[in-house]
Order: sequence, then C-alpha cells, then structure tokens
Amino acid sequence: MTTSYNQIAGQSVERLAALSDGIFAVAMTLLVLDLRAPAAEAVHSERDLWRALVALSPRLVMYMMSFLTLGIFWVGQQTQLNHLARSDRSLSWIHLAFLFLVSITPFSTALLAEFVRYRSALLVYWLNIALLGATLYLSWVCALGAGLVKPDLPAEIQAAIKRRIVMGQSLYALGALLCVFLNTYWSIGFIVLVQLYYAIAPRIPGRRRT
Amino acid sequence: MTTSYNQIAGQSVERLAALSDGIFAVAMTLLVLDLRAPAAEAVHSERDLWRALVALSPRLVMYMMSFLTLGIFWVGQQTQLNHLARSDRSLSWIHLAFLFLVSITPFSTALLAEFVRYRSALLVYWLNIALLGATLYLSWVCALGAGLVKPDLPAEIQAAIKRRIVMGQSLYALGALLCVFLNTYWSIGFIVLVQLYYAIAPRIPGRRRT
Amino acid sequence: MTTSYNQIAGQSVERLAALSDGIFAVAMTLLVLDLRAPAAEAVHSERDLWRALVALSPRLVMYMMSFLTLGIFWVGQQTQLNHLARSDRSLSWIHLAFLFLVSITPFSTALLAEFVRYRSALLVYWLNIALLGATLYLSWVCALGAGLVKPDLPAEIQAAIKRRIVMGQSLYALGALLCVFLNTYWSIGFIVLVQLYYAIAPRIPGRRRT
Amino acid sequence: MTTSYNQIAGQSVERLAALSDGIFAVAMTLLVLDLRAPAAEAVHSERDLWRALVALSPRLVMYMMSFLTLGIFWVGQQTQLNHLARSDRSLSWIHLAFLFLVSITPFSTALLAEFVRYRSALLVYWLNIALLGATLYLSWVCALGAGLVKPDLPAEIQAAIKRRIVMGQSLYALGALLCVFLNTYWSIGFIVLVQLYYAIAPRIPGRRRT
Repeated sequence: MTTSYNQIAGQSVERLAALSDGIFAVAMTLLVLDLRAPAAEAVHSERDLWRALVALSPRLVMYMMSFLTLGIFWVGQQTQLNHLARSDRSLSWIHLAFLFLVSITPFSTALLAEFVRYRSALLVYWLNIALLGATLYLSWVCALGAGLVKPDLPAEIQAAIKRRIVMGQSLYALGALLCVFLNTYWSIGFIVLVQLYYAIAPRIPGRRRT
Repeated sequence: MTTSYNQIAGQSVERLAALSDGIFAVAMTLLVLDLRAPAAEAVHSERDLWRALVALSPRLVMYMMSFLTLGIFWVGQQTQLNHLARSDRSLSWIHLAFLFLVSITPFSTALLAEFVRYRSALLVYWLNIALLGATLYLSWVCALGAGLVKPDLPAEIQAAIKRRIVMGQSLYALGALLCVFLNTYWSIGFIVLVQLYYAIAPRIPGRRRT
Repeated sequence: MTTSYNQIAGQSVERLAALSDGIFAVAMTLLVLDLRAPAAEAVHSERDLWRALVALSPRLVMYMMSFLTLGIFWVGQQTQLNHLARSDRSLSWIHLAFLFLVSITPFSTALLAEFVRYRSALLVYWLNIALLGATLYLSWVCALGAGLVKPDLPAEIQAAIKRRIVMGQSLYALGALLCVFLNTYWSIGFIVLVQLYYAIAPRIPGRRRT
Repeated sequence: MTTSYNQIAGQSVERLAALSDGIFAVAMTLLVLDLRAPAAEAVHSERDLWRALVALSPRLVMYMMSFLTLGIFWVGQQTQLNHLARSDRSLSWIHLAFLFLVSITPFSTALLAEFVRYRSALLVYWLNIALLGATLYLSWVCALGAGLVKPDLPAEIQAAIKRRIVMGQSLYALGALLCVFLNTYWSIGFIVLVQLYYAIAPRIPGRRRT
C-alpha cells in the first residue's frame, strides 16, 4: 500500500498561522486603501479641507467597523490554532475557505460604505460575517473530531470556543434583522456595539464569566 | 581556497517559508482587489444593486477558482518545505521562480475574468498553472538530488509528492485541451471540478489511497 | 463555573508579532504606491523626465518621513513585545488599535503630501502620530499592570520605555505647534529632524545616556 | 545611571527578518500589479488579444528583472541575518533604510518600464540598486564592527559576503555605464545577464570557487 499524499499534506500549524497572519494583515491594510485624500481641485482653503475631511468620516467609521470585525475573527482563529497540536489537509482547507472570506471583506466593506442605505449591501456584509463564523465553527468541530487539538485541552475550553461563536453570530443576525424592521443605520449601529462589546469586554459587576 | 558565497547563501528553510507565506498572502488578497463595488451613479434602487451584484458573480467565481489554485499550490509547497532539513542557493532560486509565478496569478486571473470566452486568455491561465506545477516538481527533484530532505523521509512519500504533481498537471492539461474541442466554459468548469476534488478530496469507498 | 472565552483568547505574543510585522510591512510598502511614474504623454525628452522627477521629490521626502515614522513605531512596539512573557485579550486589542493607526498612516501621509501647506492636513498627520504614541504607552502600562512582562525585567527598563514615548511625543507636539506660529514647512522640518535624531541617535559627547 | 532605551531597542533578529520578508513579499507582488489586462474595448478577436499580450511582454521582462533584483537582495540580506547572533538599534535602522529602498523598487521599475529609452529612468533604476548594495554592505560592516555576528563565524565567510557585494555592484555600475556609450537597451540586457548569472550561478569548469 502506498502512502497517500493526503496523509502528509497540510500538517504544519505554524505555516497555516503564518499564511493567516499575512492575509489578515493585507486585508486589514487594504480596507483603508479606499480612503482617498480629497481631490486637490476641490480644495481652496482650510475650511474646504475640513469639510472634505468631515465628509470622509462616515467612511472612516465603516473601515473601523471592518477592522474590528477582522480583529475579532483574527483573535478567534488564533485562539483555535493555539490549541492545535497539528493540522491536517481537511482542516487546512477549512481555514483556507475562512481566509477566502477574510480576503473579500475589503470588497463587502467598500460595498457597504458606498451603498450604506441599501439593505442588499448590508445583507452581503452580514453574509460575509455569518460565513466567517460558520467556517470558524466548522474548523473547531473538525479539529475536535479528528483529534488534532492538544491532548491536555480541558473540555470547558472546547465548549467556551463553540459558545462564543454561536453567541456572537446570533447577535450579528439580530443586528442584520434590524434593517428589515427599521433601517440599515440601526443594523450598523447595533453591529458596531456588539463588536465594541467583544473587543472591550467590560467586566459586568456581579457576573463571574465575561 | 576561499569559501564561496554560494555555499553559504539561501540556507534557511524558515525564511523561504516566511517569504512564501507573505507572497501567497498578498497574491491571494490582491486577487479580490479587482472586485470593485458597482458605480454609485448606476444604482438607484435595491433592484439595481442586486442586478449589479449578480452581474459581478461570474467574476467572483473566477477569483474563487484562483484562490483555490493558489491554495492547492500553497499546500503543495508547504508539504515539500516541511520535509526539508535545509535549503541551498539553487533550491531557493527554484522556489523564487515558483513565487514569481504565484505573483503573476492575479494578472492571469484578471485576464481570464475579462476575456472569459477567449482561448488565448485560457491558455495564458493554464500556462501559469502548468509552470507552477513544473517549478514545484523541479524543486522536489532538486531537493532529493542535493540531499536536502530530512534523512528519515520514507521513499513512498518522495514518490507520493511527485505522483500528485504529475496527476494534477495531467488533469489541468486535459481541461485546457477542452477549449480546443469545445469552448472555454467547459475548460473552466473542468478545472474547477479538478480543484474542488483536490481541495475536498472525498474518500471514495473501496479505495485505500485517496 | 465555566471557563471564560476571554481568559483563553489572544495569548500568543508570537502571533501578535507576526500580524504586526505583516501590517507594518504592507503599510510601509503601500506608502510608496502613491508615488506614480510621470505620465508618458507629458514627457518628450530627457529634460522633461528629469523635471518630472524633480517635481516628484517633495513627495518622496514625505514618504521617507512616514517610513521613518513607521520604522520608529515598529522598533518601539518590537521592544515592548520582546519583553512580554505572554499576552492577553485586552493587550491584544490595544495592539490592534495601534495597528489600525498604523494602517491609516498611508492615508494621512497622502493627505499631507497633497495638501502640504494646509494646517488641517498637518494636524491630521500629527493626530495620527499622537494616537500611535498614546496606544503604545497604554499597552505598556497595561502589560505592566497585568503582570504580562517577563519576570526578570529590570525596573529601569520599564521606566526607559515610558520615558522614551513621553519625550518623543512632547517633541512631536512641539513640532505640530510650530505650524500655528510659523507655517507647516517649519513643522515638517522639525518633525523630520526629531525622527532622524531618533533613527540615527548620535552619541552626544559628555552625556552617558543617549 | 539609567538604562538607555537605545540599549534595549531593536534587538530581535527574528522580528527584523519577519518585517523584511513581509516588505519583500509585498514589493515583489506589487511589481506585477502594474501589469494590467488589456482594455476590453480594444479587443474584438483572438488575434487582437494575442497582439495585446505580445505588446505587454516587454513590461513582463522588466518585472522579471526587478523580481530577480529583489530576489538577489533577499538572498543577500537573508545570508547576513542568518549569521547574526543578535541585532541592535543601529543595525535595525540600517536594515530599515535597506527596506525603504526595497519598497521603492516597484516605483523605479514602473518608471523604467514606462520610459525604457530614457537614460534618466535607467540611472534612477541603477541608483536604486546601487543604494541597496551600499546599505547591505554597510549593514555587514556594522554587524562585524559591533560584534553582532555569531562567534563561530569563519573569517573567510566575512570576506566572501563583502566580496560578493563589491563584485556585483561593479558589474551593475558597468552595465549602467553602457547607456552612456551605447543605449539603455544594452544596459538592461547587460544587467539582466549579470542577474541571471547570480541567480543560476553556473559552475564554470576549471574554477573551484563559484
């Protein structure tokens, strides 16, 4: 019996982490690439420039939101990879699918920045986030199923990682739903609040688990 | 006798892996950079935006195909590098040639996305893939010839890596040939199927080696 | 009591360093992306080309200034990360905020290059630098407070890192102030001098501590 | 006496290598970004597309030349960093200057591709290469002077690294000079030959040291 290529391919967690860091770094920096300096022809005084900068600020908020999104998923993926003893081909491909979704985040961000009042733009953006969550959840289930996690991993950490993704995605879906009943600004505001909560994670008095 | 520069240059597998991960990360993210949000002037309603997004979807498929291509070659190169004990100057340069081909993949993808019905565009795209396969094969032959692989590498793994490249490239060539007898859509469909097979690698019942 | 996700997330200093190096690398290279070759239509002789290149040189100086800025902050962040034993979620998020500011540096640089005589452009640029300094200072205070630094770190190094940021930021603020009393060219000249001082750090005779 | 910030900053060779790999990866991939697919309006048949692709080929050669250039300097820098035990602030800054020159290589390449017959474009390109060589030479002299190289480094390797840079730069200068007596095509041809020689490094019979 011959050794299969698939048994030896894609085993390095370090390389997967390095590729992920690279793709996150490029995607996070490209987000801001669409933020262009105002055209010189339209600016004749300090006041014109201030006005042009103020006009740019909604776009800046949108890019911060996407930077937050990518930051949250980077922390999430990193937490999983830290607990892996090794990878295999299937897991590498689930993470590559995850990274494809990371790489199109600049597109869905630019779409939402351009068409901020359109529900279709918001739904595309939410779909992007939802698929990021789904692939990340799938990768954890597969890593557990294939026995790729470090042997000393406590069962409660396994559950905590799943619970976090389900909780976060429920809140994002709720936010996206708001655009059906109210409008896209409510959705964006709600999603930003959820993201800030996850990024800052204030310790609520009287609760032990954050 | 003086020590030659060529004997001491390019020996670090880690640096080669880091440069490769960087170039793959940038190329994979730049692929999607050509996917632009529709022009705001052409969109006046939700329906306009949906239509514009649907019109973008063939491009999205093309970029997914190239992401798959780069993902397959990333897994392939990584598998080789994992089995190397060290590198040398010649091997580094073969991998740099491989990385040059990686860096022009966004160009040949954009070309095919723009001219999807033209055989010349498909041939350029296939040539890109074929040269990627050829340099990867060459790098493995050289690594084996120069004794750079880890000493405990079983002979069957050496063969499995070669076999995989030859098999994959034969299927790609067959796919490219389809555009001569049928048309470019058949070629693209066939290549995507081959790539999905390699990415998902379903275990066929009754076969031991996948 | 369940294990909290927040207790296990974002602990890897290596991954944080890798993401940082990636974002710095992309931002530093994108800076120069705005430096475009002159239009072929406007160039009919060697003299035309020389003139066009000379006309580009103020932009080149501006990009060198931003490369210096990012270089200084890269060295600063690296110095901190080298002294960390581990990271935690809060610290990761402070560094992500720092990296967001790194990723918008190409924007504020392009803004200043385009509107070099406008105080608003200079203030945006200075605000970018000031926030970079503030997040870097905050990250060090948090790392010390949460006990994340290596146990053998001498107290004087803790102080040296803080002192350097405060000193540098005071000089930058002074430079930015110059544009109120004089003009933006004085500010830019002063800031470049401060940066060159930090990059070259000449050893002044008669002083022990540089 | 207080510990100086400058004594503790910039000591990690690993971080310097990671930043370098990132900047090289982005610069090498951005090179090809200027290679745009032909405009769809100008292409009405397979023949049109072939012609447009053939018209692109001189540009492709130019980008291959710059990829070779960056590849040669990447191998050169990597060889130095591999022999370092640690870095210090001064050495980090010399390498940052080197990386700035790497990051402007896409600009000087695009300039030469656009103005291939102009001596000024060729001189800018050569100046870029010459400064890359000068900073790399300087970094090695400083590393040796400050005792940063690994203690077991044989003296002949120290000399081999210097000799290689001097020899390469002399050949590049000779190539650049050709444009004064002949024309820029001779210069480019000569430089490409020198680069291919360094990349392929054929073993000349009868010579022991390559």
